[in-house]
Amino acid sequence: MRAALRRAADTDLAYGDPFGSRELRTRLAPFLARTRGTVVDTETLSIHAGSTQALGTIARTLLEHGAKTLAVEDPSHRWRTATLEASGLELVPVAADSDGLCVEALPDVDAVIVSPAHSFPLGAALSPVRRRALVEWAVSGDRMIVEHDYDGHFRYDRAPTAALQALAPSNVAYIGTVSPLLAPTIRIGWTIAPSRFSETIGGVTMRTTFAQPRLDQLALAEFIARGYLDRGLRRARAAYKRRRDLVARTLPTTGAAAGLFVHVPLPQATDEDRVLREARAAGIALDGVRANAIGFVDPGVVVGFAASPEPTLERALAALSPLIRGA
Amino acid sequence: MRAALRRAADTDLAYGDPFGSRELRTRLAPFLARTRGTVVDTETLSIHAGSTQALGTIARTLLEHGAKTLAVEDPSHRWRTATLEASGLELVPVAADSDGLCVEALPDVDAVIVSPAHSFPLGAALSPVRRRALVEWAVSGDRMIVEHDYDGHFRYDRAPTAALQALAPSNVAYIGTVSPLLAPTIRIGWTIAPSRFSETIGGVTMRTTFAQPRLDQLALAEFIARGYLDRGLRRARAAYKRRRDLVARTLPTTGAAAGLFVHVPLPQATDEDRVLREARAAGIALDGVRANAIGFVDPGVVVGFAASPEPTLERALAALSPLIRGA
Repeated sequence: MRAALRRAADTDLAYGDPFGSRELRTRLAPFLARTRGTVVDTETLSIHAGSTQALGTIARTLLEHGAKTLAVEDPSHRWRTATLEASGLELVPVAADSDGLCVEALPDVDAVIVSPAHSFPLGAALSPVRRRALVEWAVSGDRMIVEHDYDGHFRYDRAPTAALQALAPSNVAYIGTVSPLLAPTIRIGWTIAPSRFSETIGGVTMRTTFAQPRLDQLALAEFIARGYLDRGLRRARAAYKRRRDLVARTLPTTGAAAGLFVHVPLPQATDEDRVLREARAAGIALDGVRANAIGFVDPGVVVGFAASPEPTLERALAALSPLIRGA
Repeated sequence: MRAALRRAADTDLAYGDPFGSRELRTRLAPFLARTRGTVVDTETLSIHAGSTQALGTIARTLLEHGAKTLAVEDPSHRWRTATLEASGLELVPVAADSDGLCVEALPDVDAVIVSPAHSFPLGAALSPVRRRALVEWAVSGDRMIVEHDYDGHFRYDRAPTAALQALAPSNVAYIGTVSPLLAPTIRIGWTIAPSRFSETIGGVTMRTTFAQPRLDQLALAEFIARGYLDRGLRRARAAYKRRRDLVARTLPTTGAAAGLFVHVPLPQATDEDRVLREARAAGIALDGVRANAIGFVDPGVVVGFAASPEPTLERALAALSPLIRGA
């Protein structure tokens, strides 16, 4: 931040570009191409105040370009659903399972939102067959895919699967965020969208928030330029892998190959709410699968491990394990 | 920022409260009470990403509480109009003149947005008679006033008029911003709203942007605690007064008693666009009155002086003066 401020001009204190600082976009575009395999340049990349604002902006942009219906993975994050619902698009739930979104079940909608690298709350990676089918569905039908890549930098047992966006850049609006890479409170997210949407994205941003805070962006640009973000990512991946291993050794997890949480399925008859309440009483904040579903789905809990150091995690797992096995 | 980061806990890096950091609200509430006369505590104060986001959040909050129609000063800032229009409220333009909003012309609407300290683009302060009438209109009819106090800290020839909010805290949602106090790119704004709206404001914020960046908020809290914001305000007021005086000596201004711009009326037959174009050709960015109007209004230009040091301002005024007099 000091280095960024030293270099900043007086004009850097004004509102600035609704697409975000050019310095940051210039540094971030090659980072994303390198680490997520995206097809991106400074013109198709926009900065937003975290991925929630990016989601709302993309949803409103699609709406202004004539889209009316958006398929969403069910279950998927209830806050994502709430943000998308507020945009005015009509949401159409489509089942998601341990291979990700059930692409074969997609109805005739204008767009779909999906997290191919690691779905929430099931933690699924979209299977190769479904990836191909999804791209085919979008390209052949002139439809849009919103790729919500909120923790795709974290894959533990092999190199991360590249973003879907690279397969069909004209049919994908890609959304990412600095939250899992650095810290959620930084509130920097980004979109990569086909250039035909750029003007609308800028207009929606100006009406929503006018512009993003530039000093944080300049600091992040400097952080990337110095190689700190790459280094931080390598370190975080190693640390999170140790935490993930600890959870996966103790609990019967699925969705543990990537991301910052695992899914623990519960027997069908389990009262998910009761498990969440009991965990809360033991001082453990969990999320639930049914708590994030629109339709009827099997119960389960979501165990996030990224924010807890190993000793904390060990204590939590010792308390949680009998609760889960008891269910 | 260094001091704020030194004190920050690990948990300060998580998403945090949609109402903004408690540290900042605890420091900002007495600052606003002292400098703008608002009735405010940490529970009625919320932090937003600048006043544009605050405007959208308040508009959507009113809508969720049953409001359908919002009267807007005509002329008023076109970007404000665009933000409010995007919220889903139906906007009803009401004339504004050199005494501010024509309160006597208010139709039967659910709410009104007004900048009583210094309207844009006319630079008017709402007259005492109209202030009283507006409060009476709101209280007697159970209606809401949105007080958009974007530059009310700057009054040059006497102490600032206190915010209208103090006269009817239950019927006013107050909006302010750090932009004129520090710098626009910081993107911190605030609302003071009756507590019956709090839950909705939190919900709208979570769906729009989830939470605001906390490190900037902690830094601003520290900045206020050290007395820097009060000191900066005194300095800025003195500097801006010199710049304002310079403009007012050179051009036939109105609306120069407060704020960071003056209004220069043009003769009725003037082609405002041509004046703006000619100024732009001379390297001077002006805004226009008609450019910010919904209905038919007299032409005029808006000369912002806050961001230009005096030598720059002198050169600009030397180029601008013949253009204005020529019109």
